[in-house]
Amino acid sequence: MTEQDILKALSNVQEPDLGKDLVTLNMVRDLKIDGNNVSFTIVLTTPACPMKDHMKNASENAIKILVNKEAKVTVNFTSQTTTLRADRSGALPGVRNIIAVVSGKGGVGKSTVSANLALALAQGGARVGLMDADIYGPSVPIMFGVRGERPMMKDMGGKGVIVPLERFGMKLMSIGLLVDEKNAVVWRGPMASSAIRQFVTDVDWGELDYLVVDMPPGTGDIHLTLMQTVPVTGVVVVTTPQDVALADAKKGIAMFGQAQMNVPIIGLVENMSYFTPAELPNNKYYIFGKEGGKRLAEEYDLPFLGQIPLVQSIREGGDQGVPILMTSEELTKQAFYDFAGNVARSVSMRNARMRGEEIAEVVE
Amino acid sequence: MTEQDILKALSNVQEPDLGKDLVTLNMVRDLKIDGNNVSFTIVLTTPACPMKDHMKNASENAIKILVNKEAKVTVNFTSQTTTLRADRSGALPGVRNIIAVVSGKGGVGKSTVSANLALALAQGGARVGLMDADIYGPSVPIMFGVRGERPMMKDMGGKGVIVPLERFGMKLMSIGLLVDEKNAVVWRGPMASSAIRQFVTDVDWGELDYLVVDMPPGTGDIHLTLMQTVPVTGVVVVTTPQDVALADAKKGIAMFGQAQMNVPIIGLVENMSYFTPAELPNNKYYIFGKEGGKRLAEEYDLPFLGQIPLVQSIREGGDQGVPILMTSEELTKQAFYDFAGNVARSVSMRNARMRGEEIAEVVE
Repeated sequence: MTEQDILKALSNVQEPDLGKDLVTLNMVRDLKIDGNNVSFTIVLTTPACPMKDHMKNASENAIKILVNKEAKVTVNFTSQTTTLRADRSGALPGVRNIIAVVSGKGGVGKSTVSANLALALAQGGARVGLMDADIYGPSVPIMFGVRGERPMMKDMGGKGVIVPLERFGMKLMSIGLLVDEKNAVVWRGPMASSAIRQFVTDVDWGELDYLVVDMPPGTGDIHLTLMQTVPVTGVVVVTTPQDVALADAKKGIAMFGQAQMNVPIIGLVENMSYFTPAELPNNKYYIFGKEGGKRLAEEYDLPFLGQIPLVQSIREGGDQGVPILMTSEELTKQAFYDFAGNVARSVSMRNARMRGEEIAEVVE
Repeated sequence: MTEQDILKALSNVQEPDLGKDLVTLNMVRDLKIDGNNVSFTIVLTTPACPMKDHMKNASENAIKILVNKEAKVTVNFTSQTTTLRADRSGALPGVRNIIAVVSGKGGVGKSTVSANLALALAQGGARVGLMDADIYGPSVPIMFGVRGERPMMKDMGGKGVIVPLERFGMKLMSIGLLVDEKNAVVWRGPMASSAIRQFVTDVDWGELDYLVVDMPPGTGDIHLTLMQTVPVTGVVVVTTPQDVALADAKKGIAMFGQAQMNVPIIGLVENMSYFTPAELPNNKYYIFGKEGGKRLAEEYDLPFLGQIPLVQSIREGGDQGVPILMTSEELTKQAFYDFAGNVARSVSMRNARMRGEEIAEVVE
């Protein structure tokens, strides 16, 4: 077995999202051959890639069939999250991808989706931050049990910057930690815009693969300010299957598609898709109607990123301050992992596309 | 046993809501005595009175203890629904009480609550009409399976009037039956006001104890028009326990309390209070938070009219066109009966109070 044999075999293995083979995409590194033993590393475009197992099996098969059926193949993975932010001067210089989570109206679980998206990406191995920019009702302090904590400041080139908190292997910061809870509501118009701009520029996030931004709900001026301040990679729209929520989601989609915003929509996620009592884990109750979010995504030709169920036990109680991903609720956890994987893929594909690379049809 | 003995005994029996005894309130009629047999009729202020059994038992006990322990007592009930509409000229001349069902925002189940409130009042023996005035999304046609039906017209004193449909022992009419579904959305501002005014004045409801009006959701000009056109007895505010819904309910309460509206609020009902899978009828899952509506009613010092659970079976499917009260779902049915009883009591008490009668503290 020569290095050339192995690379030739691997040039038959496709990266499913990008639609090209591993060798052409320059994803194979550290190739070592020792007798029948072959080992190499695949450099993924995101650590949260849900296609890992698929590529590993395909690589093994290709080598065994095309080169040596006795080969013992070891596939390692590493990742280099892609980014479109070539110079990364200005705001958030160390952040590769900024994902804004939005909703057309409140009450659809946008903050829960944001927090668990960030956690799922972090658990996949990425360096992740969660920025709670929901000026009208910051919920990260309660969700992560950090209410009342005051973040540290540090000096950075003569300027005082805020150091994010760290929880569950990721960084987090909430506008709710910087202002008195009772004062937040008086922020309106220009004052809100100036506060949010300062909040974005004054936190030192360091090097991140993904910064998830929990945006204020609705469609207003504050969103324009945020989009002009934060160099957002794209937005994830959260909706529930309920008709009124879908109508509001449409408004959100329309707003982010406007010329003055011009932010790409990464996709749509349906929250509260169905209710499953923890006591009856195989039952799905479509309380708010079935697959309204999925149909909306089809209607607008947007990627559908997943369905998050509502799972609840009547015995629950003390889980405040612990996001779902840190609990033992497997059904919802798996839904969040699938969703986060789809977000990461969608971002990778967009990054590849925008760099001028051709991408074949998306494999579902 | 003399007539006087019996009336003296019954003057010890209180009407719990009005806080006075049956004799003072002139509620005892058709008193007949034949040996040990006593029979009489209690004239209720509403046929949907949930206090019937209570008054029956109290009357029997009073006669047996105070007059003759061998007495065989037969209590009949009839009702004469009270009204504040002394002249009843103008719009809706034959209607005794007009109950407007409102919500601060859509999606809280206002139409379901309206339809089942009307049905529960009708099942209690009242003459009831349901007017679907939700110009933005009339739902009575679908809920009652009368989509596409065209109501009849008849001549009344040289004027053509619309005859309401009849279903499940009550009258119903929807603005959705009068206009093409696709045209409804273009009604805005003055056009909507004029259409709704015509809709209210052109339907011949005949004699009704209660007309339940399913109002458009939200807080806008259309509500002012409706309140100026329809002589509303009071409004029932529907909310869910979710924080965003409660915030919108507050807006609604504020609007109807304004001087230009000045419509009394009959009370607040909490919909989707908890979820109960039909397969686990004893489990309550407080999906949207617990008793938020109840706390809101306390905060604003409004009567709390009830909690309607969300009960669903995964086997359901073909129930479109049949309101909950016409199904076999006992848990929700009982919640609606309790709620309707509270509405009728609240209206009776208000009518009594406004006629200058003193009412003792409400017995819960």
